[in-house]
This record gives sequence, structure tokens and C-alpha cells, in this order.
Amino acid sequence: MKISRDKWSSNFSEWFDWVISEAEIYDYGRYPIKGAGVWMPYGFKIRHNVISLIRKLLDETGHEEILFPLLIPEELLKKESEHIRGFEKEVFWVTQGGEEKLETRFALRPTSEVAITLMESLWIRGYSQLPRKFYQIVSVFRYETKATRPLIRVRELTTFKEAHTIHETYEDAAKQVKEAVEIYSKFFDILGIPYLISKRPDWDKFAGAEYTIALDTLMPDGRALQIGTAHHLGQHFTKAMDYKIQRADGTLTYPHQTSYGISDRVIATVISINGDDHGPVLSPVIAPIEAVIIPIPGKSEEDTKKVFSYAEEVRSTLASNGIRAVMDSSEDKTPGEKFYIWELKGVPIRVETGVREMNSGSVYLKRRDTLEGKVVKREDLVKELKNMEKTIEEDMRRRAKDWFEERIKSFDSLPDAKRFLENRGGIAEVPWCGSEACGLKIEEEVQARVLGTPLESRPRGNCVVCGRQSTTTLRIAKTY
Amino acid sequence: MKISRDKWSSNFSEWFDWVISEAEIYDYGRYPIKGAGVWMPYGFKIRHNVISLIRKLLDETGHEEILFPLLIPEELLKKESEHIRGFEKEVFWVTQGGEEKLETRFALRPTSEVAITLMESLWIRGYSQLPRKFYQIVSVFRYETKATRPLIRVRELTTFKEAHTIHETYEDAAKQVKEAVEIYSKFFDILGIPYLISKRPDWDKFAGAEYTIALDTLMPDGRALQIGTAHHLGQHFTKAMDYKIQRADGTLTYPHQTSYGISDRVIATVISINGDDHGPVLSPVIAPIEAVIIPIPGKSEEDTKKVFSYAEEVRSTLASNGIRAVMDSSEDKTPGEKFYIWELKGVPIRVETGVREMNSGSVYLKRRDTLEGKVVKREDLVKELKNMEKTIEEDMRRRAKDWFEERIKSFDSLPDAKRFLENRGGIAEVPWCGSEACGLKIEEEVQARVLGTPLESRPRGNCVVCGRQSTTTLRIAKTY
Repeated sequence: MKISRDKWSSNFSEWFDWVISEAEIYDYGRYPIKGAGVWMPYGFKIRHNVISLIRKLLDETGHEEILFPLLIPEELLKKESEHIRGFEKEVFWVTQGGEEKLETRFALRPTSEVAITLMESLWIRGYSQLPRKFYQIVSVFRYETKATRPLIRVRELTTFKEAHTIHETYEDAAKQVKEAVEIYSKFFDILGIPYLISKRPDWDKFAGAEYTIALDTLMPDGRALQIGTAHHLGQHFTKAMDYKIQRADGTLTYPHQTSYGISDRVIATVISINGDDHGPVLSPVIAPIEAVIIPIPGKSEEDTKKVFSYAEEVRSTLASNGIRAVMDSSEDKTPGEKFYIWELKGVPIRVETGVREMNSGSVYLKRRDTLEGKVVKREDLVKELKNMEKTIEEDMRRRAKDWFEERIKSFDSLPDAKRFLENRGGIAEVPWCGSEACGLKIEEEVQARVLGTPLESRPRGNCVVCGRQSTTTLRIAKTY
Repeated sequence: MKISRDKWSSNFSEWFDWVISEAEIYDYGRYPIKGAGVWMPYGFKIRHNVISLIRKLLDETGHEEILFPLLIPEELLKKESEHIRGFEKEVFWVTQGGEEKLETRFALRPTSEVAITLMESLWIRGYSQLPRKFYQIVSVFRYETKATRPLIRVRELTTFKEAHTIHETYEDAAKQVKEAVEIYSKFFDILGIPYLISKRPDWDKFAGAEYTIALDTLMPDGRALQIGTAHHLGQHFTKAMDYKIQRADGTLTYPHQTSYGISDRVIATVISINGDDHGPVLSPVIAPIEAVIIPIPGKSEEDTKKVFSYAEEVRSTLASNGIRAVMDSSEDKTPGEKFYIWELKGVPIRVETGVREMNSGSVYLKRRDTLEGKVVKREDLVKELKNMEKTIEEDMRRRAKDWFEERIKSFDSLPDAKRFLENRGGIAEVPWCGSEACGLKIEEEVQARVLGTPLESRPRGNCVVCGRQSTTTLRIAKTY
């Protein structure tokens, strides 16, 4: 199992830009708005398959899909002052309609807590209507001043799945945060994305939240990427907007809320975590095309014609068995050129049919992930291909997990952690007393970012800054 | 077959507001932005089912889904001056990012011709890559100064399906417009929406188009509603942006384009065209719930318990046969209250199960459209329910079509046409010489809007304005 990961991991940023452009996934940097890109047809299908998966998981757990307006009036956004402070430098403002100046400015939604709380206050008046779990899949906007990166740090996040839930008690909301983390874990497991679950430190939680749980993965360059967050919002927004519900005993109370989101970054991750010098390796779970059939021309025109019709039969068999299969019947490219293109698209399985295969009633299946191939009988094709898909999925998941786990290391001293992160990247864990002062000191010394603490704390050794007995473990990484 | 259509048709506007609010489809007028509403869970599902249908039709005909950024820089939008003139009074402008004034203003997309042409010029360089058919389903924005109406005239159209195609020749683009009209016709046929296809007059075509074909329906109040348009754009945008492709003979030419769109109005229509005093009547094709099971409590607690478990068996049978079925097992409502709620939601079939049904191994099916019911045997349930759905669909389609066709009338004099339109609404057809002067005169005299001419002209009589021999028929209606 030989995969050259040289370019892919050592020069990941360049590799990523090359892949999303050449594989026609996402056209970035040419549309004349900084930090905004165009989803091309092939990329749109990957995105669509990823969205379908999360939609299914949310629907199954009683989440209801809704759709809110894009615009939020300034006055509404400002009802929650701590929240707007967290976003105010990043908000795009609509100030003009036609040739008129608008009376009030409208924000392009940076996130939707206030808007949703407002409507909840009209829809839900009593405990018997709780809990409710809503979600929407929309674009959100951030006027990023940092350097933008396609799908990773953009000004228009085109695939923001934000969930918002409302509960009678703090405890019920806390349970919901757990459910959110479980749903995201399941989602990432299906996609084969490895992750760590951390409680963000207080100084890095969502504006207005009681606490924030985050899921982080690692990109091939060893930098951590936040791919999911879940916030316990407590009564923060309901108090700010003076929204009460009636309890069973007739008294009034401010309901508790949670919110949780994932973004385009999940799609960036599925494209990134499995790759090589030939391009990305898509998991059969989300690949727009599971198998590409490539007929190999024969020596005579007659042979070639027969081979093409044999290839078409193969395609038809696969398609009628529910496999997303296409045949590359273009005549202006050599098989080698076709191999190059479809490897670059990350299609998990290539099916080659030449004269030899045709005459022996077989096909040659080639795995994109390991580039290993095998001959299978025509009548076993569907079974063999499905088995191969399963093996590919499992192998990809395991390889990504192994790669990830190798990059998580514990250290007792900050200089060691720093060296580790600078050398090959990854996530360093150090003992920590729990104080914000020591936490910020760690970030400064290591020149990296604190991801937070494990949900189940296993204190070990002394705080790497103050030397006191540690109460927990702190995770640090270079981040996107 | 008795349907009271009094309130529904004579006071349609009030009926529509009542339905979308009480059936929890679309919350309008309470979110603090004029002309923007919130899709609630039940409405979102109707929307989702409608979108799935059009997506399927487009995918089957070789359209590729893409997703463009929301924002369009002013400079880009202005590259096509005739086009921007058509929209400039209706554009929302983003002028500020965080606390900074932006160097250039960004428009919230009013439509996407210029943005898409720009990217096409990067993606497609030669004839062999043509035709390409793209589409996206996005929000578009219009700073409407006219009175807004939920789902019908809004400032944020949340469900704008816009298709954009590109071709080597004028003729190929013209064929594409025909295909677009065929796709929309099929779509509306499936939804049971009656329509007329008209070529819009030159003074009312899309800014920059060679010609515009539109599909119009009638709302219950007799006013016409444009529900689909297809434009032949010629070389208008490619010339404006100086975008040429290479032909087979090596020469360069400006490619031809088309665009076509449908919006939230389709969903407004499926909710509106079949209804009565109890609410809307949804077609099984797009109903979020095809059948609601309502257990009728017995005289004893034991009977009631048995009835509920019998109802649950019925639900389970339907669900396992792929029918979207729910059981209303709430205990704080009487069956009568449940009937009211589910009729208001427009669920096509109600399944009642009481002691009598349980003991005789049957269920009672009630059609929402005619309010007629029948007893069917438990073992025939799935077959009978599917047959009933088919009958409902056919009857709804026929009734809507009959109603529509009754409201299209030919007239030889303008005063007669005017009286007809003022009296009960509908579409009036009058002989027309084809001149713009006479067309505008007709609009003025009748105080209505010209919809255009049939695609196949059948001249009859003399122009109702100038008295010259008519060359075609002009359709006029009060419109939304």
C-alpha cells in the first residue's frame, strides 16, 4: 500500500488549491469578490451528498428544517449586545435599496440566534411545546480581515448548517449539547473524518454562551481545523429579548437554548484528508461518481467497437444496481489521459475493460486509494465492487485515524510542545491548572492556539506554566 | 362533490394570509423586514418537495447544479448597462464591512446573468464544450417599492430556481427556450397547476433579451400570476462582456445564451389553487403528510387503548409501504379538533379508526378535496389509499383546469373585455394588429396588463384599437 503523500502533506496549501480548481470542485480567486467562490457542478454534487447525510441525521433526531430571511435589522441584532460585540467587526451591512438610503441598516446574517429567538417568542409560549429543535442550511457572511482560504476561511460560507434548540431547563439544554456532539461525531465517523472533542476555554467560547464544545480535525499540514461547534446558550438570548414561557405550575421563566453548526469546512476536510500526488481520494459515501468505466481500445476498429459496447453493458449493470457509474467514452483522449483525469476527480473505483477482459468475461477494478487492482468476473461485478467500496471506506477511515492519532502527543514542558508543533504540526496536550492566566501564557509561549480541554478530565502532572497540581489537560495546536 | 369556495375565491387574499399563517407554512409580516418571511417546518417541507420535483426534471435533461456567491460587485453588474437599467431601482446594496466603508458597492444578486457569463468565459472556450446548462436554487433580492405580498411579491425570493445555458448558435438557444418551456409545462402538469404560455410583448420582455416566453396561471381571485419565464438572451451579455468562443472552423464568435426561472410563486400557487373554507388542499405529490391517522376514542378506557394501538398498526403499515403517514395521538384534543387542524394543513387523506372499524377490521378513508369518505378493509388499505391518491390528483388537476379554462374568454371589443376582467377576473383575448402603440392603448383602456401572444398565432377579426386586420391575439389580465 504505497501512497506518495509528499506534495499532499508537505505542501498541502498548494495541493488543495490545485485540486479544487483542476478537479472542478470550487472556483476560487477568480470571481471578483474576496473570499467568495463558485461551486462548480462536480463540487456541488460532493456538497449535496455531504448535506444529505447531515440532513438525514438531523431529521431522524427530531430536528425541523426552516428557512429564515438573510437580512437582520441592526436594531434586532443589537438587542443582544454581547453577541453583537462578538461579530460587529465582521458584519456586512446593507445600507441602500435602489437609489434610496435605507432608514435602518440590515446585516447579512453572521449567525441567527437573535432572529430565531424573536420568532420562537411568537411560536412557543409554554412548556408543553418544548423542546423544539430547528435547523437551517444557509449562507452566512463574515467580513474577514484575516487572509481568506477557499472553503476554510471565507467571507460567504455557503454551507452553514445551523441548528437552534429551545428547552425549559438548563439540564435539558445541556443534554441537547451532548446530542449535538453525538450527531456530529456520527456524521464525521460516516465521512471518515477523525476528530477530537474539546471544551473551548472560557476566553474562546461563542459570544453569549455558557460553554462551547468543539470538534477539531487536522489538515495534512498538521494544522488544526474547527469543523463543528455546539453551544449551550443558557438564558442569555431569552433574557436579552425578555422572552418568557409558562411552566407547568403556571409561573413564567426564560427558556434555555443551544445552537450548533457546521460549515463548508467539512467539505474542505473530506477533500483534504485523503489524497496523494494524483489528487483527492473521495470516499464512496460522498463521491458524485462511485465508479468510472474506461474502455481500452483494441488494435482493430472492430475490437474497439466491441470493447465500447462491452463497457456500456458494464456501466448499465452497475447503474441498474444503484451504483453511480459513468463511462468515459470520449474518443479524443488516450486511456492514460482518462486515468489522470478521473484520479484527479478522486473517483473511488476505476473499471477498465479491454479486449482481454472482454474475451475472458471479466473486468479490471482499480482502487483509487491504494492504486491496487484486481480482475473480477463479469457476473461477480456488482458484489465485488460493493465489497471493494466497503474495504475502501474502512481502509480510508482507519488510515485517516491512524494518521491523526499519531499527531496527538502529550508533553510535560512547553518548549517540547512548541518544538513538536513547529516541527510537524499536530495537537499537543499539556497539564494545566485551569487558570485563564496560564492558558493565555501557554498560547503566547507556544505561538499556537488553545483548543480546550477533554470532556472527561484526566489530570496528570503539574501545570506547565505555574507548576501547581494540574486539574485538567490543555490541548494546543497551530490552527486555521 | 360539494366544495364551498366562497371565502377561498371571493376573499382570496384574506384566505391566503390565514392559511399560510394558521397552517404554519410561512410566517409573514412579523419578522421585522418588509417583504421577508420565515419558512416554518411544515411549509419548508412543501417547498422541499416542490424543489425536489424541479431538480429531478432539470437533472434528467442534462442541467448541472452550481452555486454562485450572493454578492455581485457594482462594476461587474454595470458591465451590462441595459440589464442594470432594468434592475437598478430594485437593487439592495452592501456598502459597509464591519466598521469600514467598502471600496466598491456589492449588490445582493437580483439575478445572475452577468456573474454567470463571467465564469462561463473562464470555463468554456470552444464550441466542443457547448451546450452547457447550469442552474442554481438561491435567494434573489428585489427592493420592491410596490405593496409586498407573501410568497407572491417579496423582497427576498427564497426559492429562485434560475437556469442559465450557453450555445454556439441562435437556433440552438431558441431550441433551449423551447425545452425550458416543456420542462416547466411538465413541472406544472405534475403539480396540477393550469397555465397559459405566452410570448411577452417587446415592451415587457426581460432586460437584454431577444424575447421572453412566460407561463401564467390564475389565482382564485381571477388575477393572473406569472409563474415561470424563459428568455432567449442572444449574444447580448456575451457581447457586453466581450466573451468569444472558438468555432469548429477556428473563427471566433460570441456565444448565445438563455436563462429561465421559477420562484416561491409556484409554492404560493400549489397552496392557492385548490382550497376551500377549511384551508388548502395539497396534492399527494407534494404534501408533507399524505395520510393522517386519527384514532376515535371508545366509550371505555380499554376500548380507547385498543383503538390507539390499532391506529398505530395502521400507521406502521402505511409507513412501511413508503407512504408519508403520521398518527395524531395527542390526548388533549377531541377528534373534531384534530379534523379541523389536519384539514387546515391540507393533508390529502384522513384515516379514521374507531371501535367500529377496529371490530370489523377496516378503516375509514376521507378525501380532503371532496370531503367524501369510504370504508375499506384493513388488508386493502395500502392499495385503496394509493388508488384514492391517484383519483385525488386527477380530480384536482381536472377541477383546476376546468376552473382555469372557464376564465379565458375571447372578445371583439375592449369594453367587453374590460367588463369581463372587472367582473370576475380571468384572461381576456382580443384581436391585435401587433403594434406597440395599440398594445399600450389596450393596457391603458382596460386598466390591465398585457400577458402577450400565443406561441402559435391564430389571427381572427380586426385589431380592437385601430381596426386594421389583426395579425395575432393579445392576452390581457389583471395581474399580481
